[in-house]
Order: sequence, then structure tokens, then C-alpha cells
Amino acid sequence: MSTAVETISEQRCFDGVQGFYRHASAAVGGPMRFGVFVPEQAKRAPCPALYYLAGLECNEQTFAMKAGAQRAAAQLGLVLVTCDTSPRAARYPGDDASWDFGQSASFYVDATQEPWRQAYRMETYVTRELPDVVEASFPVVPDARGIFGHSMGGHGALTLALRNPDRYRSVSAFAPIVAPSQVPWGRKAFAGYLGPDESAWAAHDACALVRSTPLPIPLLIDQGTADKFLDVQLKPELFEAACAAAGQKLQLRRHAGYDHSYYFIASLIDEHIAHHARALSGS
Amino acid sequence: MSTAVETISEQRCFDGVQGFYRHASAAVGGPMRFGVFVPEQAKRAPCPALYYLAGLECNEQTFAMKAGAQRAAAQLGLVLVTCDTSPRAARYPGDDASWDFGQSASFYVDATQEPWRQAYRMETYVTRELPDVVEASFPVVPDARGIFGHSMGGHGALTLALRNPDRYRSVSAFAPIVAPSQVPWGRKAFAGYLGPDESAWAAHDACALVRSTPLPIPLLIDQGTADKFLDVQLKPELFEAACAAAGQKLQLRRHAGYDHSYYFIASLIDEHIAHHARALSGS
Repeated sequence: MSTAVETISEQRCFDGVQGFYRHASAAVGGPMRFGVFVPEQAKRAPCPALYYLAGLECNEQTFAMKAGAQRAAAQLGLVLVTCDTSPRAARYPGDDASWDFGQSASFYVDATQEPWRQAYRMETYVTRELPDVVEASFPVVPDARGIFGHSMGGHGALTLALRNPDRYRSVSAFAPIVAPSQVPWGRKAFAGYLGPDESAWAAHDACALVRSTPLPIPLLIDQGTADKFLDVQLKPELFEAACAAAGQKLQLRRHAGYDHSYYFIASLIDEHIAHHARALSGS
Repeated sequence: MSTAVETISEQRCFDGVQGFYRHASAAVGGPMRFGVFVPEQAKRAPCPALYYLAGLECNEQTFAMKAGAQRAAAQLGLVLVTCDTSPRAARYPGDDASWDFGQSASFYVDATQEPWRQAYRMETYVTRELPDVVEASFPVVPDARGIFGHSMGGHGALTLALRNPDRYRSVSAFAPIVAPSQVPWGRKAFAGYLGPDESAWAAHDACALVRSTPLPIPLLIDQGTADKFLDVQLKPELFEAACAAAGQKLQLRRHAGYDHSYYFIASLIDEHIAHHARALSGS
């Protein structure tokens, strides 16, 4: 392991290891924590890495503790990587005043506005620095990356894949924000991180991105119909229409009665892991 | 549903429902919360109920959120019931002074000492009142109960089954306290709840109980070898010897490298669910 990565904890899990680590991030200018699940079969040969981006109020531990993803990842031979939802060391006035902006609410963009642009550089962190760290320190296949996420992290997965098509071979999302420019969560975040000029927002909006630069790979999205954020914040029908117009392959599945919680994610996680394993390792 | 049971939340999970509820407990003299996972197949016919007892510092939500048990329970048709780890409304001096006594640390006994005896009547609660409530309000087969638990809750599962052999058809435990009379956690709790006369403790000590009244059913225990509580608090070898002396069938499995956490439980949960399903429904 690289000396730049400090081990916080490592716990045996499904014959593999669920670890949490800390490193000094150049991208955000301070320490960042992340989690890695390494399946047992990585002892024999490096495995593809699947990156998960969490939603508002979560951190690098949430998915590892609640989604039950390690079982299928162990079976199919995927490394799971989780990161935090914002920088933590850099603090700015008002960054903890609300749950949907600032701390735990980076929206995975590189902010362009002061003061956020100093540390809130999460796109660079997630797409460049973290893979570099993971690929240097863990038994993963370089350039065999998948990405997925939930809610704000679903927005992150879709937009980072659409903006960095060379970086990811597979993409999926649970209950993602797909049209941040058009919904309250996204408009608040983008105004703060990207500024009031809405013309700069389209480059970070999945609906706008897919219309201009669709991906050659199929996207998988699961959405619960009892999700309390469905009608105001999520609006998957907007992405469905954008993908149809752009010729983007999309499997959007609506699940009756499911809400926005990790009980929903856990119920569908095996199918997402399988989706990524097919693309990343042909299993 | 009985009008005495108030719904806190119900969330769709693996095609079933993970709910949390509140009711007025006569046993503990105040409100108690509990969780129930009802698999979809209970819509067609009642299912057996498997009761889980959590460890120190946990509550009725911990297992539901972290163990990933609903997946196998949905497949095999078991209702999962979780309860809290102590009364919450009744408060006594010093009941939150330590993490291993008082709040969240009932040890699932009916206390005999003041002031605890007024509300800390968790054996009666778990073995009588909660099953009555569950069997009156949810689609469960009466008298087809299994019980399992973790750490303090593993002690609870073993001792409540040994003390109430007519109530449970299947028993298992993760990293249980098996000899509370001989280890610091148990001695502190028993001295407080049962008093200084150690002769009263044997009736709540799994090692002592199994020597006098073994069960006709096989017990399953999983224990991690990297569990930091193994040598001082858990000592499964004492229970192994007691079972051997008493002719109690026991499958005690030691798992290299696993610790005391829910990552350990999640890694083995499918096998525990299967153990109970075999006994409760022959599946």
C-alpha cells in the first residue's frame, strides 16, 4: 500500500476486506476519507473497481454499512470504492447551515465560485485523484472502472460518466437527480458552486449532457414510485425523454412502493452489481 | 393490525415491508419500539417468525439496517422481528453512565433488584409480550418461533431458549456472551439486575443452563477469531465444553479474521436464516 494512504480500519467481510482509509488530497487541499472493499479473489488477480457516490447527508461509510453490496461484489469479483460526499477539513461560512448545500452536499462538481472553488473540487477528486490513489494502492485493474450512486450521487455518477466517457465502462444509478438545473436541490447547489449564470449549468446536468454527448454504453436506473422526492427533485421522466431524443440506451425501472432509503438500494443492489460486472469483467 | 400497535414507518424492502412500530408494554410499564420485516409471501399464508436480539448500544433498527437479513428472509419466507435492547421510557440514576449497563444493556433478564425490577423485565417482554403482540398484528404462524442474536443478544437468544424450551424451535447466535457469570460484562450486569448473590446467576448463564437442561434442537454459533472481545468477554470454548458435557448438539464455527461488527454478521447471515428456515418451515 502506498505510504500516502493511512488505514483507519480494515474488517473482514464476505471473505474479503472492507477497509476505510485517509489520504491527503491535492484536489481538495486536505485530508479525505474513502472506503474500499476488496474481494478475496483479488488475492489471485486484480479486480475491476466500481465507484459509488452517496447522497446528501451520507459519507464514505453509509453504502458500505447499509447496502449489502459486498456479498455480490465478492461473488463477482469487484472492488467497491466509496468516497465522502464533500470535503471535510475546509470549512466556509454557512457550509453546515442546510443539509442540501455545503458539507455532505458537494454535488460532485468542481466549484467555480468563491469560496467553494478552493476545496470543493469533487469532480477532479472522484474522476482523477481517487482512482490514481486506489489503482496505486489496491489490487484493481486500471482503466476498468464503473460508477454508480444514489440521489445526489446518482447525479454524480451520470454526469461524471457523461463528462468523462473515457474513464468509465459502466454506469448506473438509484433514484438519481437527473435535471439539477430544473429542480430545487440542483438549482441551489449550482447557483452556489457554479454561480448565477445558468449557461454554465448545462455542462453538469445529465439531461443536457446526454442530449449533446450520449454514451455508447447502456445506462441502468432504478427508481421507487413511493420516493418522496420523485416529483419535485428527481423527475426521471426528463432523463427518459432526453435519452430517447439522443439515442442513449437507458433501462429505467420504476419499482412500485419503494422509497428513497437504503432499504430500496439494498433490494436492488445485486442487479446493479451484476450490471457492472457484465461490463467490467464479462461475468 | 391491532389498534395497540402504532406504526412509526413502513418501507418496501425485497418485495416485502420493513416496518417499525411502537406499543405500550405492560411488561416494562412503558412504550417500546420494535421492527418487523414481513416478506411478500406472507400475503398468501402466515410465515414463521424469527426474533433477533441485538447487542450493547444497539436498538431495534440496527439489525434491520446493517445485517442484510431481509434478502434471505424474503427468499425463505420468514418474518424477522427486532426489539430494543432495554426499556427507554423508565430512567434510573446512572442508567446511562456506562455503555454496558442500563440503557441499551438490559441483558434480556427480568431484573430482581431495585430500581431495575420495575421496568427491566426484558425476558417477559421478549418471550411473552412481544410474541403476543406480533402474533396478533402480523401474518405470522403462532408457535413457530426462532430466536437469534449478537453478543449480549446472543446471550439473550441462548438463555431465553434454554429457559423457555417450549417457545422456540430454532436458536443461533453471533459472537454470544455464553458465560456471563464468569466475564466482566456479565458480572457487572448480573450484579446490578440480579443482585450480589451469585447463586441466582446460574439460571441466566448459558453455560450453566445447558448443563442442567440441554435442548433437543441443534444450536448454531458463529464466532470471529479477530473479535476483540473474544478472550475476555465471549469465551466460546466454555460453552463448547458445557455442550459436550451435557450432550447438547452445537455447531460452533470459528471464522478466521472476522471481528465483532455487523460486517461479520452480514457475512454469515444467510446461513443463519437458512438454519432457522429449516427448523421453522422445513425449507
